Amino acid sequence: MTDESLPTPSPRDPTAWGTVGDALADPERSAVGLMLAQRFGEEAIWQTPGARHELQDPRVGPPDALAHLVSSGAEDRLLHAVGRSFTDMVALRETGVRHGPDVVARPRTPDEVEAVLGWCADAGIACIPFGGGTSVVGGVTAGGVDGPVVALQTRTMDRVLEVDTASRAALVQAGATGPGLESQLRPHDLTMRFFPQSFEMSTLGGWVATRAGGHYATRLTHIDDLVESVDAVTPSGRWSSRRLPGSGAGPSPDRVLLGSEGALGVITSAWVRVQDQPVHRGGMSVTFDGFGEALGALRSLVQSGLDPANCRVLDPGEAYLSGAGDGSRAVMVVGAESPTVPVDADLAAMAELLADHGGEVGTVRIRGRQLSADGGDASDAWKQSFLRAPYLRDALVDHGMVIETFESAATWDRLGDLVERVRAATTAAVEEVCGQGIVTCRITHAYPDGAAPYFTVIAPGRRGARAAQWAEVKQAASEVLLAEGGTITHHHAVGRDHRPWYDRQRPELFATALGAVKAVTDPTGIMNPGVLVG
Amino acid sequence: MTDESLPTPSPRDPTAWGTVGDALADPERSAVGLMLAQRFGEEAIWQTPGARHELQDPRVGPPDALAHLVSSGAEDRLLHAVGRSFTDMVALRETGVRHGPDVVARPRTPDEVEAVLGWCADAGIACIPFGGGTSVVGGVTAGGVDGPVVALQTRTMDRVLEVDTASRAALVQAGATGPGLESQLRPHDLTMRFFPQSFEMSTLGGWVATRAGGHYATRLTHIDDLVESVDAVTPSGRWSSRRLPGSGAGPSPDRVLLGSEGALGVITSAWVRVQDQPVHRGGMSVTFDGFGEALGALRSLVQSGLDPANCRVLDPGEAYLSGAGDGSRAVMVVGAESPTVPVDADLAAMAELLADHGGEVGTVRIRGRQLSADGGDASDAWKQSFLRAPYLRDALVDHGMVIETFESAATWDRLGDLVERVRAATTAAVEEVCGQGIVTCRITHAYPDGAAPYFTVIAPGRRGARAAQWAEVKQAASEVLLAEGGTITHHHAVGRDHRPWYDRQRPELFATALGAVKAVTDPTGIMNPGVLVG
Repeated sequence: MTDESLPTPSPRDPTAWGTVGDALADPERSAVGLMLAQRFGEEAIWQTPGARHELQDPRVGPPDALAHLVSSGAEDRLLHAVGRSFTDMVALRETGVRHGPDVVARPRTPDEVEAVLGWCADAGIACIPFGGGTSVVGGVTAGGVDGPVVALQTRTMDRVLEVDTASRAALVQAGATGPGLESQLRPHDLTMRFFPQSFEMSTLGGWVATRAGGHYATRLTHIDDLVESVDAVTPSGRWSSRRLPGSGAGPSPDRVLLGSEGALGVITSAWVRVQDQPVHRGGMSVTFDGFGEALGALRSLVQSGLDPANCRVLDPGEAYLSGAGDGSRAVMVVGAESPTVPVDADLAAMAELLADHGGEVGTVRIRGRQLSADGGDASDAWKQSFLRAPYLRDALVDHGMVIETFESAATWDRLGDLVERVRAATTAAVEEVCGQGIVTCRITHAYPDGAAPYFTVIAPGRRGARAAQWAEVKQAASEVLLAEGGTITHHHAVGRDHRPWYDRQRPELFATALGAVKAVTDPTGIMNPGVLVG
Repeated sequence: MTDESLPTPSPRDPTAWGTVGDALADPERSAVGLMLAQRFGEEAIWQTPGARHELQDPRVGPPDALAHLVSSGAEDRLLHAVGRSFTDMVALRETGVRHGPDVVARPRTPDEVEAVLGWCADAGIACIPFGGGTSVVGGVTAGGVDGPVVALQTRTMDRVLEVDTASRAALVQAGATGPGLESQLRPHDLTMRFFPQSFEMSTLGGWVATRAGGHYATRLTHIDDLVESVDAVTPSGRWSSRRLPGSGAGPSPDRVLLGSEGALGVITSAWVRVQDQPVHRGGMSVTFDGFGEALGALRSLVQSGLDPANCRVLDPGEAYLSGAGDGSRAVMVVGAESPTVPVDADLAAMAELLADHGGEVGTVRIRGRQLSADGGDASDAWKQSFLRAPYLRDALVDHGMVIETFESAATWDRLGDLVERVRAATTAAVEEVCGQGIVTCRITHAYPDGAAPYFTVIAPGRRGARAAQWAEVKQAASEVLLAEGGTITHHHAVGRDHRPWYDRQRPELFATALGAVKAVTDPTGIMNPGVLVG
């Protein structure tokens, strides 16, 4: 049992991405406005006035036995009303939220989770498991459910319960956030090394439930591969798998819960694989004439066996937006790391391969732990800016923008066409719907057999109409994406927003089977209704 | 479409591991007998007289429309009566087989699979999907089913249908054997690089259905990680997933079929990840004072980030049996390979690490493709002897031995105790049941968080009693294995033989859920009854 007290974060801002303390300062916000005005014209920019929220009155209250675990305060309910998609941000910051959970429950143990689920099942109340609430796909939207809703907040269960240094694994409660679990692993000189963009706010349970993807673009990218076992509480009882490094005993029980998005039960803890802190690290930026050239080089790199620790590709527009280029060339950011051996030779071999594929290699930076007194290198800086992006989005929303991202994955044989056709369809939809806008693409994850493209849209929106505008763009993009053989989501999950395309993507018989599984674990259908099945 | 004709193998011997042509020659068999007599005493060795098989008469025949796909010949039915566990080998070579499938069906297309399943469902006939028939866990045992049985032979569907060289992936029919699919990939200079011990006989469909593990002990060890998509035919219709390099869209449909062991439907094809032929290869043997020291070194190696391509550890007894040592020291066999860069530096770093952990490093061998005119190196030789082992087992069975293996996996914190306690319990059971015997252990797969121990038992058996003798030993070993936190199987699958322990290992609610999935895909319960559920 690790007993270190956790750092106290700045309070959460109920209508913003994250904490009050980390929001953009006024000068930063003004700079954002200036940049947008330069790009889209002064007249396209407007200031969001701030929203009024009038949540429905609570329709249910807890039984006495659970009263101490439950809150019905307006701000608490607002904090658990929606996730953090662009549509959610528009509601939170402009148009107002009308529907929230009727109560927020904060069980502290699996037994208390069981008690809350028992109450919900008996009373016919929907239960939405809620960790960081960072869903960008409508995965925690109380307004998406007919009838009363309990938001089951897991963050009260935020501990690393056990660390097995021999096996480099840890038993982590579902409600531990990224910084929370990392701070509890640090005394053991271990790290989970899993950094989704929501890292600061999101929780282990949410990562498992949504098959989250991390900042590292190569090797084991999804949480799936870091999970040794999962403990869950369902309306039908407990589901705990045996902790194993590998097994061939029937279909994997964990793989049923991975991606279950709260529709089968509440994940309460998991044994996860952790790592030594990397000692040797290095990286480089490589530029290419175009995105196509960069994709070709990326494919060769991830098929080479050179095994970079990280590798992302930004198209020229994405490179410009993120400050990594002047907008004329595509940029690849490559990282190497090892707990044991220097990475110089690996980086040199990668640089040679990338140069052979038309890359212009910038400075190669090497950093060992012993050299880190300067506090970091460019890849750290990039990670920080990556984690900072959602705060920036708040400012873009406040300046009247439609600003959203979506992602996919496809095999290499389809990827180039998919990217260009999705880009074209999205650009056409943006111009149709918003008059003008930017559509950029980067590759966030790369595999020997394919890669995950990630698109960003920034376009001037209309007051009161932005959610509908985005829905129209998303529709156009998703149709092409599915037609081109991609997945409707590589790591954002399905939620309520992706259901139409998810239903077409998955095998029909699997959908029926998943419904049968839900009927077993959740016979009255109270768990996150509308998500995945039903 | 790849149209090369496949090599014609030597005919299958219906009562032996593999083909007639590859059986041990008489002098080799005599040498085996001599070695056993030296170890266990002349009087412990006896010659199996050869079995008489009296299969029950076929209880059903096909409808006219399917007659051309079906055979009821005695030898064909015997070839599909059992798998290739020790218990099966005793039946095939000593005590005789009494129960076989009533008919053997050889559908050539998914439509014909559907027709066969339709007939079975209508007529209430059990269907056992049968690829190479190499199950060592009773996964294809016709006698394990009450009532008539159709063995659905998939090997007629043995083609690599498509090769995507850009993504390094191939669409392979379920009935392709290891040599068959490799010979079809070779013209593309690609390899699946997946070598289970049953490689020569087993099929892609069997690998997927049983979550098979390959010869490579590190990195992606299970077939699970090589699968992009799966096509299956179930009694309720088709189940085909979208081919993707990665996805986060709900629980993975493929992971339901992976490990389904024929209980949900018939796998007909899969897109699998393939690789370039490795250009740079090398390896070394390292010896250690004891197995415990070798395990410690292995743990450090697989946690180091040095990422060997292969790594196995043999205890002193195992090293002696396989000719890799004199029986006084544990032996680690390490391999490195890369399609791109020389492996010298990696091997040197591994050698240094292993020496730091008490290893005595033997000759380090480096081989590039350009140097391979000598036809291979020691790791090739070891792979050949690995693939040859099942033929050797036939000879041991014929000399009156109880000879069987079983495997598990556990996290590092438990592994040392598990190995020693399972070894002690198994040795005690062997002495109790057989009077004397050998119990050895090797580590076949190693992960950062644990490893897979693999035990071999060789002991003199009694005429007519060997199946019961082994059952008693297996019972004792399995109980300890489960109590020590291992899995009942790392890559041999569950079948009928592991059911008692599998049922205790898996989450109860998952078992119910799996039953619900089966009720969806196989509502009349005809698919491989008794396996996994029901």
